[in-house]
Amino acid sequence: MRPTSYHEVDPELVAQVADVVSTVADVQPPQGLQHWERTPERFARYLTHLCRPGDYDRWTTFVREAEARHLIAVPAIHFWSACSHHMLPFIGQCWVGYIPDEKILGLSKIPLLVREVARGFWMQEDLTKAICDRLKKLVKPAGHAVHIRAMHTCQLLDVGPPVPEMITTELHGLCMHGPAKEEFLGWCRLES
Amino acid sequence: MRPTSYHEVDPELVAQVADVVSTVADVQPPQGLQHWERTPERFARYLTHLCRPGDYDRWTTFVREAEARHLIAVPAIHFWSACSHHMLPFIGQCWVGYIPDEKILGLSKIPLLVREVARGFWMQEDLTKAICDRLKKLVKPAGHAVHIRAMHTCQLLDVGPPVPEMITTELHGLCMHGPAKEEFLGWCRLES
Amino acid sequence: MRPTSYHEVDPELVAQVADVVSTVADVQPPQGLQHWERTPERFARYLTHLCRPGDYDRWTTFVREAEARHLIAVPAIHFWSACSHHMLPFIGQCWVGYIPDEKILGLSKIPLLVREVARGFWMQEDLTKAICDRLKKLVKPAGHAVHIRAMHTCQLLDVGPPVPEMITTELHGLCMHGPAKEEFLGWCRLES
Amino acid sequence: MRPTSYHEVDPELVAQVADVVSTVADVQPPQGLQHWERTPERFARYLTHLCRPGDYDRWTTFVREAEARHLIAVPAIHFWSACSHHMLPFIGQCWVGYIPDEKILGLSKIPLLVREVARGFWMQEDLTKAICDRLKKLVKPAGHAVHIRAMHTCQLLDVGPPVPEMITTELHGLCMHGPAKEEFLGWCRLES
Amino acid sequence: MRPTSYHEVDPELVAQVADVVSTVADVQPPQGLQHWERTPERFARYLTHLCRPGDYDRWTTFVREAEARHLIAVPAIHFWSACSHHMLPFIGQCWVGYIPDEKILGLSKIPLLVREVARGFWMQEDLTKAICDRLKKLVKPAGHAVHIRAMHTCQLLDVGPPVPEMITTELHGLCMHGPAKEEFLGWCRLES
Amino acid sequence: MRPTSYHEVDPELVAQVADVVSTVADVQPPQGLQHWERTPERFARYLTHLCRPGDYDRWTTFVREAEARHLIAVPAIHFWSACSHHMLPFIGQCWVGYIPDEKILGLSKIPLLVREVARGFWMQEDLTKAICDRLKKLVKPAGHAVHIRAMHTCQLLDVGPPVPEMITTELHGLCMHGPAKEEFLGWCRLES
Amino acid sequence: MRPTSYHEVDPELVAQVADVVSTVADVQPPQGLQHWERTPERFARYLTHLCRPGDYDRWTTFVREAEARHLIAVPAIHFWSACSHHMLPFIGQCWVGYIPDEKILGLSKIPLLVREVARGFWMQEDLTKAICDRLKKLVKPAGHAVHIRAMHTCQLLDVGPPVPEMITTELHGLCMHGPAKEEFLGWCRLES
Amino acid sequence: MRPTSYHEVDPELVAQVADVVSTVADVQPPQGLQHWERTPERFARYLTHLCRPGDYDRWTTFVREAEARHLIAVPAIHFWSACSHHMLPFIGQCWVGYIPDEKILGLSKIPLLVREVARGFWMQEDLTKAICDRLKKLVKPAGHAVHIRAMHTCQLLDVGPPVPEMITTELHGLCMHGPAKEEFLGWCRLES
Amino acid sequence: MRPTSYHEVDPELVAQVADVVSTVADVQPPQGLQHWERTPERFARYLTHLCRPGDYDRWTTFVREAEARHLIAVPAIHFWSACSHHMLPFIGQCWVGYIPDEKILGLSKIPLLVREVARGFWMQEDLTKAICDRLKKLVKPAGHAVHIRAMHTCQLLDVGPPVPEMITTELHGLCMHGPAKEEFLGWCRLES
Amino acid sequence: MRPTSYHEVDPELVAQVADVVSTVADVQPPQGLQHWERTPERFARYLTHLCRPGDYDRWTTFVREAEARHLIAVPAIHFWSACSHHMLPFIGQCWVGYIPDEKILGLSKIPLLVREVARGFWMQEDLTKAICDRLKKLVKPAGHAVHIRAMHTCQLLDVGPPVPEMITTELHGLCMHGPAKEEFLGWCRLES
Repeated sequence: MRPTSYHEVDPELVAQVADVVSTVADVQPPQGLQHWERTPERFARYLTHLCRPGDYDRWTTFVREAEARHLIAVPAIHFWSACSHHMLPFIGQCWVGYIPDEKILGLSKIPLLVREVARGFWMQEDLTKAICDRLKKLVKPAGHAVHIRAMHTCQLLDVGPPVPEMITTELHGLCMHGPAKEEFLGWCRLES
Repeated sequence: MRPTSYHEVDPELVAQVADVVSTVADVQPPQGLQHWERTPERFARYLTHLCRPGDYDRWTTFVREAEARHLIAVPAIHFWSACSHHMLPFIGQCWVGYIPDEKILGLSKIPLLVREVARGFWMQEDLTKAICDRLKKLVKPAGHAVHIRAMHTCQLLDVGPPVPEMITTELHGLCMHGPAKEEFLGWCRLES
Repeated sequence: MRPTSYHEVDPELVAQVADVVSTVADVQPPQGLQHWERTPERFARYLTHLCRPGDYDRWTTFVREAEARHLIAVPAIHFWSACSHHMLPFIGQCWVGYIPDEKILGLSKIPLLVREVARGFWMQEDLTKAICDRLKKLVKPAGHAVHIRAMHTCQLLDVGPPVPEMITTELHGLCMHGPAKEEFLGWCRLES
Repeated sequence: MRPTSYHEVDPELVAQVADVVSTVADVQPPQGLQHWERTPERFARYLTHLCRPGDYDRWTTFVREAEARHLIAVPAIHFWSACSHHMLPFIGQCWVGYIPDEKILGLSKIPLLVREVARGFWMQEDLTKAICDRLKKLVKPAGHAVHIRAMHTCQLLDVGPPVPEMITTELHGLCMHGPAKEEFLGWCRLES
Repeated sequence: MRPTSYHEVDPELVAQVADVVSTVADVQPPQGLQHWERTPERFARYLTHLCRPGDYDRWTTFVREAEARHLIAVPAIHFWSACSHHMLPFIGQCWVGYIPDEKILGLSKIPLLVREVARGFWMQEDLTKAICDRLKKLVKPAGHAVHIRAMHTCQLLDVGPPVPEMITTELHGLCMHGPAKEEFLGWCRLES
Repeated sequence: MRPTSYHEVDPELVAQVADVVSTVADVQPPQGLQHWERTPERFARYLTHLCRPGDYDRWTTFVREAEARHLIAVPAIHFWSACSHHMLPFIGQCWVGYIPDEKILGLSKIPLLVREVARGFWMQEDLTKAICDRLKKLVKPAGHAVHIRAMHTCQLLDVGPPVPEMITTELHGLCMHGPAKEEFLGWCRLES
Repeated sequence: MRPTSYHEVDPELVAQVADVVSTVADVQPPQGLQHWERTPERFARYLTHLCRPGDYDRWTTFVREAEARHLIAVPAIHFWSACSHHMLPFIGQCWVGYIPDEKILGLSKIPLLVREVARGFWMQEDLTKAICDRLKKLVKPAGHAVHIRAMHTCQLLDVGPPVPEMITTELHGLCMHGPAKEEFLGWCRLES
Repeated sequence: MRPTSYHEVDPELVAQVADVVSTVADVQPPQGLQHWERTPERFARYLTHLCRPGDYDRWTTFVREAEARHLIAVPAIHFWSACSHHMLPFIGQCWVGYIPDEKILGLSKIPLLVREVARGFWMQEDLTKAICDRLKKLVKPAGHAVHIRAMHTCQLLDVGPPVPEMITTELHGLCMHGPAKEEFLGWCRLES
Repeated sequence: MRPTSYHEVDPELVAQVADVVSTVADVQPPQGLQHWERTPERFARYLTHLCRPGDYDRWTTFVREAEARHLIAVPAIHFWSACSHHMLPFIGQCWVGYIPDEKILGLSKIPLLVREVARGFWMQEDLTKAICDRLKKLVKPAGHAVHIRAMHTCQLLDVGPPVPEMITTELHGLCMHGPAKEEFLGWCRLES
Repeated sequence: MRPTSYHEVDPELVAQVADVVSTVADVQPPQGLQHWERTPERFARYLTHLCRPGDYDRWTTFVREAEARHLIAVPAIHFWSACSHHMLPFIGQCWVGYIPDEKILGLSKIPLLVREVARGFWMQEDLTKAICDRLKKLVKPAGHAVHIRAMHTCQLLDVGPPVPEMITTELHGLCMHGPAKEEFLGWCRLES
């Protein structure tokens, strides 16, 4: 697939999706067909959006000598991704916390990090780990933690609505044990 | 597309989806690729599920001479469907009400009706109308109404999370005006 | 079926249920069988309880000359019944209101009335009407209204959990129109 | 009882239920009798549905080398079952958590597992254990936990509405003690 | 019964209650008997408190020429009373509203009025009317309204816990119809 | 006091209450007197109901070899009782938990146990203990716990409405310390 | 009383309050006396703050030709005042709405207006009217409305805690009737 | 200041307040002056009420041999007091808990104790301690704890509305550490 | 100001902001200065973002012959803008509704429309109207309505936190009156 | 920048802002320009307000010999500040707690302290620390803690609405560990 700018999609991908669409259109009753001309392009853009690589290089960090080990947390960040098993969206919220060592991250970078990493096709267990890894690489914290609660639309098929959430949590360094774990999970349990 | 039983999917459809998947797999970083072998089959089953026709014939109605015109309502039925513009899921709740004339429907048939009609690819405006039409055909009510609130995952692409709901309402016959409209909408406004 | 006192059940009914139980016990894996000896008796008592006739005669009313037409309401009465289609329980809340003419009912009689009438096998539409009729017979009100919201366990089979509620409402006399209808429905919409 | 497909029920079971129904119909006042012709078949289908064996074989697991011991949880899964004492439904929510060792389960399999195991006639204490056992067999986790809160309709008879929930919890392996127990129970205490 | 000051109770009443208590003490198992010596006096003081007459004479009103007809309301006043059928307490909240004509009442007088009138043995229907009457006598309003929601402990006996509330409303003068009725009932429907 | 069946009350007790009522009727303004003829009988029935002994003998337990020590809990059971100081009702909710050793109790027996023991005249501290004792006697658990939150109407007299709740808790055996205490109290803290 | 700047208070007023304080200090047990030296000054500053005149002259309005009659509302403005009967604080929220004719007010001016007018000693009925009058003078609206809900601490003395709120509403011009009244009151009924 | 009965206030105190009022009346615009004649008397009664000594002598305790150490708690008692810095009211809720040793207190005495001690002029830190001390003196508990959350109207002057609460807690004896501290604070954290 | 792409800002604007920043930096204590080098560029990008023109041309509409007049609504769209008086952000939610005539808009276009129009410097009254106008131009509806609730940070300066919201509503065509107005405002009143 | 009194702003700063405004006005469509004449002055006043130094000298503390180590807390103080990266406002709530040693602070000083320190341009991490430092300097506590949850408007630019909060916490002395940390964080987790 060729790299693309925002409104471009690879015409070959569009053609492949159009094949799928035309097979589906054989069975589907007529009411759904009125506006399908641009459906292949739209679905291709969905896939393309998910495949654009993240852009972490312009994210500078700030030096801040930590006198004490305090937790910084950003709760309940809205994000979405797609599951690698079905290519269907999942939607959720992500809690991020870290105990800085020598560097801190600009505030807006934390939700951006979550959303950038989440672009792609993921199992939630792997996504949780990937956000942890990226955070660690950026600020080398004394401890860090990521918590995700998400609703996977692929479950609609077999489990049906309403779909139960999935909860995954990764805790590292000073956040792995005792009071710092409790402090982080305490924010995760607040009503979101 | 050949008709299929529950676990069968048309192999041609699977092959077409596999083309799409292999194009996507070119760009996507490796972490997402570990379990993709069955992704084409899974996505094809998603499309196939949505295309299975509804089965309304075994739904009998009961005769009940209406002495007075009272509203029967089933609120906040969980359902899902897929949008005809993007082939992506939307998830929501549906409120159904009717004022019987000579026939009433078995209670469980009302949520089943919503879910059966919702299978397919729809604009929400059209789905609302289609549920109304099917309900009318089954019980020929003195009045009937359908209200839908749904979250469309296709909006994640351009609008981003959290996605605002869409609200559509159709009111017919005695439910179209005055107190019966107010009574029905009153139940729709209750916390769901 | 012979009339029974509280702890008695018709032995013939127990025997008939035992036949059903023994058929079921053929298929069900062993873990469920440990305490089944008294299951026929227990299920028979369930049916018997539902068949005991109500006892409305000891319910006296009080004379109270109504100077003005004010609504008396008892909201959100917990009750249960069984559906006449499946013999399975349904559970709900019932709102009762009336505008007295010359008689009022002792307060505790209103929930008792709902629970007594609800004993039996009912469609919810008919139960709503039956409570209305009984209330009318007792106090001959200037207006009266009954509202029921219930969850029918028979829906678990085809619709699955969580089961949507069913809402039925009967409005009569002065409660049928305008502000008195709005006043009654206002209490029904309060959080229960 | 002969094995059956979805809409089939064993005619002998239907006949046995019909005996029960005809005994009940002797006492019940006429309003409930209008639609009872198919009640034996419907109740038999209820029993039959509960007796269908689960189908766990098509559930594949995924290998995922666990670098660290993190809890995966699926909260508040809606399910229903029937109690082995009364053959009456109980309805509830189930929380499942596990700390993977070498295998993880596809997300949708967790609610499916709960619902499949719950089909049958159970005491809640035994059902909780059975879900634990099945989960252990599938993924051989480092720790696992199941929590159930359910409302048993059989209690309506002696305790009356509203029926208090029953709470059961099983904790095994790493989930049995200290912080992992607290982490799992923390998700169980979130508003469902 | 002789008039009494706050801590005095009529010794004859105490003696009569002591007779009742001694009969009850015959049956009640011993654990409850340890602190019963003063129970007759305590129950007598309960009755005596309910019989003390209200003291409305020191309540002055203020003259305020009404330029326009605006509603003044005091919502959700906590009060208690006892039911005239069982002499057992009922507990509730009372909403009072009036549209002044030439006089207004000092704010604290409105809850005091409710509590003073509620002292006594009442049917809730009559209490609602009595508060209306007293309010009318004090400020001769252009309109006035009283709404009561109360929980009667006497219902515990036959209906059992949780006890449904009873709702009574009286609307007079300009508050009887249309928008002023809606405005008053609007405040009554706010979460209390 | 002679033993009585459900609708019978000891005529002597009625006569004693009638003495009390006639003293009260001297002072109370006329509005409350219209329906007092049967008040002595009604109040006597209230006392009689509270004095009926519990019936624990028909409660069988089930043998269930405990492989592990898991808590079974029934939260927020609605009950009522009367205080031994004033003979006035108190109303509340009771949480019961136990860790079985060799026996478990049928689910509906737990709320029945609470309600049966609560019949009588109690200080809440003693009632909490009495429920614990009865539970211990029935199932000889490895640990057990009872938590009560109740509103005592006798407080209306001196403290006034709204009345603060009283909270009492008894923890025994394995429930007395550490994580099992935390687990039980965690369910008690859930919104009731 | 001499005009004062922010931290100044009239020494004569301080002396007068000191007289009051010394009388009170005669009775109050010693624990409360440790920090009373500056109490007269502090209470005098409380009174002085309430007496500072508002400053409405620097508030400019903006011309905006109204094409249609739309309501502008600012809900739930926190404010406080003191009651003219007891000189004690009352605290509440104020809802302001108006339908502009030719002028609109800068947004921040609406809460400032409420707070400035509220400074002083008021009966709530008069304060509501005074805010209306000031608003009218500033923007000459086609309609305007003010709604106040406040808790008066003077009620603690006779009514005791928790103190019921007082609700007052003034509606003028186009806001006085029908849909505009409903629209404004609708915002007032939203949870604050 | 002379001792006073309920409706009496020291005329000298009234005269001193009248001086204050007349100084204030110089500046305050006329609308507030209409009903000020009795303001000095009313404010004097406010101060007098706060100075009346508590009456703890008639509070008897009950002997109850504690077999085990269980916490008794009364949550969220509404009370008010006045701050010793400004003589202005503060309003709040108080949580009281104790682990009895040999004596328990009658239930209604706990809220009465809080309200009696709170009468006076206090810093909240000292009031919390004073309630602790009084409780200790009365029941000599094995542990006791008092928690207060209150809103101080004096803060309106400098901090403005809405005023943040102040939280103070005293924990003694067995309540000072570990699980008993957690148990008590757990009830304090429940929604009040 | 020169047109800019996403990450570009006009260097002249940056220089002008740098002048402002350097004046501010004279007074501000040193702690705030560590990371100010890029502040002029960041603030300039804030202004530039707000000035980028909307892009409505690629928004196609769909033809859908309206058989009946039903309301389509999208509630509680999160958006932000900046006020034209202070150039400071305001943040809010926007409700959009319309009754289609011949055209409908793709669902995601409704939130995009709100966000695009909101980019710029606005008074909320004008923004509400501008969204209405743009919507009308796109779909020529039979009726349309826009409702905005927003929090303006410029109010922090004079009113202080927490800042009251501002509410503006425009109703046109069939949405201007009666039931359609009520239906739309009903969705606006739902908890957001 | 010259020091200024409340309504004064440095004319040079106004001129510098005017340059920025005129550049912006080049691009912005006309609707926003009607009331911009005073925008430079208003934005300058925003900056000036943030630069005014705090005034901590008039804040006296009170001596109070601490017998025991109890936490004093003031939860959920509303405050605002501006971020040092964008000069744009952030809005939040601050929780302050301390365990006094020999001195306590007057209650209203705690919110004032937060608001005074927050004036300026801050990173939230530094602001949290600065409040801690100032509190320590004033009362030299045995332990102290500050918790901030704030919404930064600068995030609107890149993250978009709704903006996730940022959470920072500093714990010192006795508040740093174990139960005192838990007690403080417990109040922070209460619904604000």
